[in-house]
Amino acid sequence: MTRINVETARVDKAGHRHFMAKEMAEQPAVLKAAMGFYAGQEDNRIELPDSVDFKSVDRLIMVACGTAFYACQVAKYWFEKYAGLAVELDIASEFRYRDPVLGPSNMALFVSQSGETADTLAALRHVRPHVAQVLSVVNVPSSSIARESDVALPIHAGPEIGVASTKAFTAQLQVLAILALKAGLDRGFLSAESFAARLAELRTLPGFVAQALDREEEIRRMSEALAQARDVLFLGRGVMYPLALEGALKLKEISYIHAEAYAAGELKHGPIALIDTDLPVIVFAPYDALFDKTISNMQEVMARQGKVLLISDAKGLAEAGDVPFRLQMPTVPDFIAPIVYAVPAQLIAYHTALHRGTDVDQPRNLAKSVTVE
Amino acid sequence: MTRINVETARVDKAGHRHFMAKEMAEQPAVLKAAMGFYAGQEDNRIELPDSVDFKSVDRLIMVACGTAFYACQVAKYWFEKYAGLAVELDIASEFRYRDPVLGPSNMALFVSQSGETADTLAALRHVRPHVAQVLSVVNVPSSSIARESDVALPIHAGPEIGVASTKAFTAQLQVLAILALKAGLDRGFLSAESFAARLAELRTLPGFVAQALDREEEIRRMSEALAQARDVLFLGRGVMYPLALEGALKLKEISYIHAEAYAAGELKHGPIALIDTDLPVIVFAPYDALFDKTISNMQEVMARQGKVLLISDAKGLAEAGDVPFRLQMPTVPDFIAPIVYAVPAQLIAYHTALHRGTDVDQPRNLAKSVTVE
Repeated sequence: MTRINVETARVDKAGHRHFMAKEMAEQPAVLKAAMGFYAGQEDNRIELPDSVDFKSVDRLIMVACGTAFYACQVAKYWFEKYAGLAVELDIASEFRYRDPVLGPSNMALFVSQSGETADTLAALRHVRPHVAQVLSVVNVPSSSIARESDVALPIHAGPEIGVASTKAFTAQLQVLAILALKAGLDRGFLSAESFAARLAELRTLPGFVAQALDREEEIRRMSEALAQARDVLFLGRGVMYPLALEGALKLKEISYIHAEAYAAGELKHGPIALIDTDLPVIVFAPYDALFDKTISNMQEVMARQGKVLLISDAKGLAEAGDVPFRLQMPTVPDFIAPIVYAVPAQLIAYHTALHRGTDVDQPRNLAKSVTVE
Repeated sequence: MTRINVETARVDKAGHRHFMAKEMAEQPAVLKAAMGFYAGQEDNRIELPDSVDFKSVDRLIMVACGTAFYACQVAKYWFEKYAGLAVELDIASEFRYRDPVLGPSNMALFVSQSGETADTLAALRHVRPHVAQVLSVVNVPSSSIARESDVALPIHAGPEIGVASTKAFTAQLQVLAILALKAGLDRGFLSAESFAARLAELRTLPGFVAQALDREEEIRRMSEALAQARDVLFLGRGVMYPLALEGALKLKEISYIHAEAYAAGELKHGPIALIDTDLPVIVFAPYDALFDKTISNMQEVMARQGKVLLISDAKGLAEAGDVPFRLQMPTVPDFIAPIVYAVPAQLIAYHTALHRGTDVDQPRNLAKSVTVE
């Protein structure tokens, strides 16, 4: 594995205790600046290379690893909902050894922070001859994945040093959201009004992310109890399911707690057997169309003495009634909610790891960029 | 939740200590008898209702929950590999609340042991008006899911009483394997020779499953160490990835150990941070095209002092060299391997639970058939 040597890197922590802290804090600025590359502040237009055209695409194939895969999983919901486009999604290390069915009206999209992820690059090379177009979403525009794509869309997040990805994840999501809106327009699926409304929502993202970051002290206090746990469960539905996965992955990576995520509706098909008073359960549930269903799953956990932390907005927390731990997020439009909820996922992992005294920037066994298979 | 009352059920344990034990032991006979319903012993024909025709299907949508979902995940590989058919797969509780893109040349396939799984039934009703045909694979032919499908294919497994599904899983896989071969023929993707060869392999399944069951005593001994663990990781690639998921789910369900499965290639994108001397890692890796890749992931675990149990065949165990725990499976054709490897997944969970003294037939918090959302 290739390790980036943090000691000699030409970036510093800018007064933060860790690169991860600095990179989380940068998110509002990063998202704002990146948005500037894809949409002017004034008008209702998205600026993407002309060759990015979803009109005649009948299926989008998305492939990535780790955190970038969860970004794709969120984006699948967006492409379906805002563009009526069927999406096939797979982990790169699985995709390349399957016999995926590919065709000339498919578009393939690869997401990687470094642009050098070995499995993702191999999947790209495998797919290239069989599909209409290969797009990539990367942080490093000079990377192999960017160079071997027809169109590479940079996330403009700046260098990310912490091994646990934070600003790259939210910046990937923002570019994928822009792409989904573009697909909706290209395919005549999204009206001009809806397009303008969604784009306006995206522009409010940096403000909401800043508000979410303001909950840090509260999260720090809650994480003290989490740091005592050996196992943690994360639950969510819809776009909050990949957020639960990302929350669990972050916590695993830097605190070494065995965290696992489940689609809330799957809980009763097995994992609910794990619930006892020792297992904290973190629930991502903004007050949206799935709120009632998720809360009903949460109540099954509480009925079995599970210790729940509910992350929701003012309305959601009011509706949910008595819950042991509660974290209030700003009230956010549905479209951008998964990007805003990434912040508590990150802060929970960060502060739990600090309480445990693990090395958050360079966790054991992990490399920043996985350039081996 | 509806609980089947085991005390008054008109089935008995036939001398076994638990229903789960009886149902595991029944598998060779169940698979043989069920095969008789779908393919005569002598000829190379599959008998399915005439209306089951994959010729003009362009996408297969598969939806299920829990163990049945993992059966679908295996089947996705089969439909791609043997029929060149694109498959979209989702958990029922997620699928029904997304905006899935459906069309008149899609076929939908629902899998449920009871045929009453609430989320799966709701997904079926949601999909029905939008697709060409609705198929289901169920154990109870009079169930709601069977009645509301265009064609219901029974798995002929007989009543399953143990909450943790065993014979229903392998019987589901067998019917799905038959369907994938039928799709390959219908679509002119599979030659008559390959079809005949794969069908002949399926006919050898009961014998291999019986051989796998013969490893019980060895598994019982190995499970003693597992019973001390609080957390366990399962790894696999390709068709062995859903098997790893199934192994982890079974262990969770009846032993309450926090078991989690990962696609072996994803390990280095985060979860490898968990590896220490306390965490047993169970690896499913028959000697197939993915063997070397999986073993290389296994070696990363061993390099970090992880305690590995490798489940493979004679060739695989010989190639893998020195591994702390080894379990030898029969050498099985690739096509049917995932069905045979279900047996150690079941036996590991069963014996680990016995060592821990939990109630294997009626684990805490779980119902056999989940008829609520």
